[in-house]
Amino acid sequence: MLTKPETRTEIDDLMAAIGRKARAAARPLALAGTSTKNAALAAMAEAMLRQTQAILDANAIDMAAGAENGLAASFLDRLKLTPARIEAIAEGIRSIAALKDPIGETIAEWDRPNGLHIERVRTPLGIIGVIFESRPNVTADAGALCIKAGNAVILRGGSDSTNSSRAIHACMVEGLEAAGLPADAIQLVPVTDRAAVGEMLKGLSGNLDVIIPRGGRSLVERVQTEARVPVFAHLEGICHLYVDRSADLDMAVSIAVNAKMRRTGICGAAETLLVDRACADTHLVPILEALAAAGCEIRADAEVLGRYPQAKPATDADWSTEYLDAIISVKLVDGVSGAIDHIERWSSHHTEAIVADDASAVERFFTEIDSAILLHNASTQFADGGEFGMGAEIGIATGRMHARGPVGVEQLTSFKYRVRGAGQVRP
Amino acid sequence: MLTKPETRTEIDDLMAAIGRKARAAARPLALAGTSTKNAALAAMAEAMLRQTQAILDANAIDMAAGAENGLAASFLDRLKLTPARIEAIAEGIRSIAALKDPIGETIAEWDRPNGLHIERVRTPLGIIGVIFESRPNVTADAGALCIKAGNAVILRGGSDSTNSSRAIHACMVEGLEAAGLPADAIQLVPVTDRAAVGEMLKGLSGNLDVIIPRGGRSLVERVQTEARVPVFAHLEGICHLYVDRSADLDMAVSIAVNAKMRRTGICGAAETLLVDRACADTHLVPILEALAAAGCEIRADAEVLGRYPQAKPATDADWSTEYLDAIISVKLVDGVSGAIDHIERWSSHHTEAIVADDASAVERFFTEIDSAILLHNASTQFADGGEFGMGAEIGIATGRMHARGPVGVEQLTSFKYRVRGAGQVRP
Repeated sequence: MLTKPETRTEIDDLMAAIGRKARAAARPLALAGTSTKNAALAAMAEAMLRQTQAILDANAIDMAAGAENGLAASFLDRLKLTPARIEAIAEGIRSIAALKDPIGETIAEWDRPNGLHIERVRTPLGIIGVIFESRPNVTADAGALCIKAGNAVILRGGSDSTNSSRAIHACMVEGLEAAGLPADAIQLVPVTDRAAVGEMLKGLSGNLDVIIPRGGRSLVERVQTEARVPVFAHLEGICHLYVDRSADLDMAVSIAVNAKMRRTGICGAAETLLVDRACADTHLVPILEALAAAGCEIRADAEVLGRYPQAKPATDADWSTEYLDAIISVKLVDGVSGAIDHIERWSSHHTEAIVADDASAVERFFTEIDSAILLHNASTQFADGGEFGMGAEIGIATGRMHARGPVGVEQLTSFKYRVRGAGQVRP
Repeated sequence: MLTKPETRTEIDDLMAAIGRKARAAARPLALAGTSTKNAALAAMAEAMLRQTQAILDANAIDMAAGAENGLAASFLDRLKLTPARIEAIAEGIRSIAALKDPIGETIAEWDRPNGLHIERVRTPLGIIGVIFESRPNVTADAGALCIKAGNAVILRGGSDSTNSSRAIHACMVEGLEAAGLPADAIQLVPVTDRAAVGEMLKGLSGNLDVIIPRGGRSLVERVQTEARVPVFAHLEGICHLYVDRSADLDMAVSIAVNAKMRRTGICGAAETLLVDRACADTHLVPILEALAAAGCEIRADAEVLGRYPQAKPATDADWSTEYLDAIISVKLVDGVSGAIDHIERWSSHHTEAIVADDASAVERFFTEIDSAILLHNASTQFADGGEFGMGAEIGIATGRMHARGPVGVEQLTSFKYRVRGAGQVRP
């Protein structure tokens, strides 16, 4: 395995070879039956458990290097593997095996007056490139989801998790081979040069069908600028919670605390609270007090600050910041119209929630806001493929093309038409 | 209207302004009700009929210039408008108005054990760019389809139809304004410089959500190389007809003649005939004789030539050529496996048909070939949105992302999730 290409040309050649191997693997994988794919997934999970010590050893190398490089504690926490985390990853692979196989499923069918019977049937997408940060579990999650949907996958993980990712990848390949599937169906890019990502973004000469970037704003922006292949964009989640004048106060308090504080580091966590000016007297301070009591820092505009002087002042930057932390920005708005205006201006179009009893306010919120997920009287933290009943997901897509919202196994498919006739010709 | 920008900067500015105007128009259009959109479409059709003479006058200018520039007769025929063709375009707009409005439609809905009710609801895509050749009717068809699906559209037509397209575009704008919709919802790029297309491919600073290229291979290749926004690729249709050993001979003859000769200039016309070697003795010559009798030129590989010496010899180039003419390439293959191998190697993944009685051969053909449309015992010329019962279409997409096969009004939409709760928070 080439680990330190010395020239740009070597990386080009390496990536081109990865693309060709992926294309060769894509067809047998696309035609593999459900039981074969599930056998591979089961063998991957088994290999993960059997190789726990090897994975932990590899992870220890990454952790030591990360500590030496001064990586943040939160980063190191995401990087760290334990026997329990490895078991959870293996369990995740098993749960993907248990999902219904989407390939071959008839999504729609109908008859034409001339007797033609038309079916729309799910097919794999082909070759999926996943570019992700140093979260070793993505190697397993993304690999398993792509295999379940009949796709070959090229994984390019962050440099800080290289050893952990390789150890996990070895288990994935072991599972493929145990089921007689091509080892190249899941490839891990063995170099961490930026140039390797550049080659993926150029599409590996037609051997990459879609790219899924999993990472911060700078990765997503690079992908959106450079990519010559389709992208399932996973932008940050600047999620809003709007409390309408018709909201039940207790419900608003409970949802606000959950949406912000249950887990602050996930993309479905609320980052901005908008309160209807018409209920500011009754609803604003109790909600802010509950958030503060839960340990949340409040950043407020001037008007909110006047009513709740304990808050810190918010600047315009706060409306476009994904804190991923125990911080929330707060603003008064003029009813649902004001909420819609603020959200359409500042949202990343991931997830927004409204607390309200007034059906017409909910209807406007649901109709006029163009975000992937809109919730009424429920926490933004439900923005999750598992919570939607769609099974494991690679992420929440914020674009409007092909996949939007949770990207699970069905979203990793395409379709084709099958038409059955009895000799029909077109007049 | 700026018609002759003198510098690259002027074109940049012009295209940037078009993008901004489209974005401003996209939201009112996305929120417009069905009756408003249909009123606009009806008014467009009326304006087309009322302005028939003005459209014919504009078309006469294009036709005269085209003749002077030595354009081919087939090209001029596609460019030419007559009162009957203008009536057909107006009727086409009316038929789009009669389609069901996809926007707001609930595609799927389900309940979760925690009581959350989840709906997946259709939404517009946003702003669609259509780049097309000198076929003036596309101005009306594409504009009307995009409006029906709640999208703003930027049209960039071929330079040889400039005057015709402008006259039709004026009628489209008249219809928008009559219904109180923003005139900028349908914009026609007023310059024909290549640089204008380049700006569209770069995405107009986020003001273009998807590009639909309608044109020959060179346009599609330029789009696929340069585009930084999603593309609904409409590649050529290198469509195959495979006659299996189990085929009824009369049916095979009738389908072959129809698939090739009904209309040779459409993308669903068959370009290659593959005949199972096992039935070459009985089926090959009768099919070729029927094609020749219908006026078709036969280009055959050496083996076919041995059995049908009247044919011209085929070269490898023939397997990848979309003739769009009364020419067919012919080859013997080893059963359905041989047909699948040939098609997977040479097809543009548009449409393929099998004539067979053997269900297992059909099943393999349907499973192992990854083309947008597969037909059994029916002509490839049914590859058409209207024939599928999907209404008017912009074209047949050959890519696997978002839209595949006929791109009608539903394929010009995205979706979002609406989740209704009763105060649920995530544990």
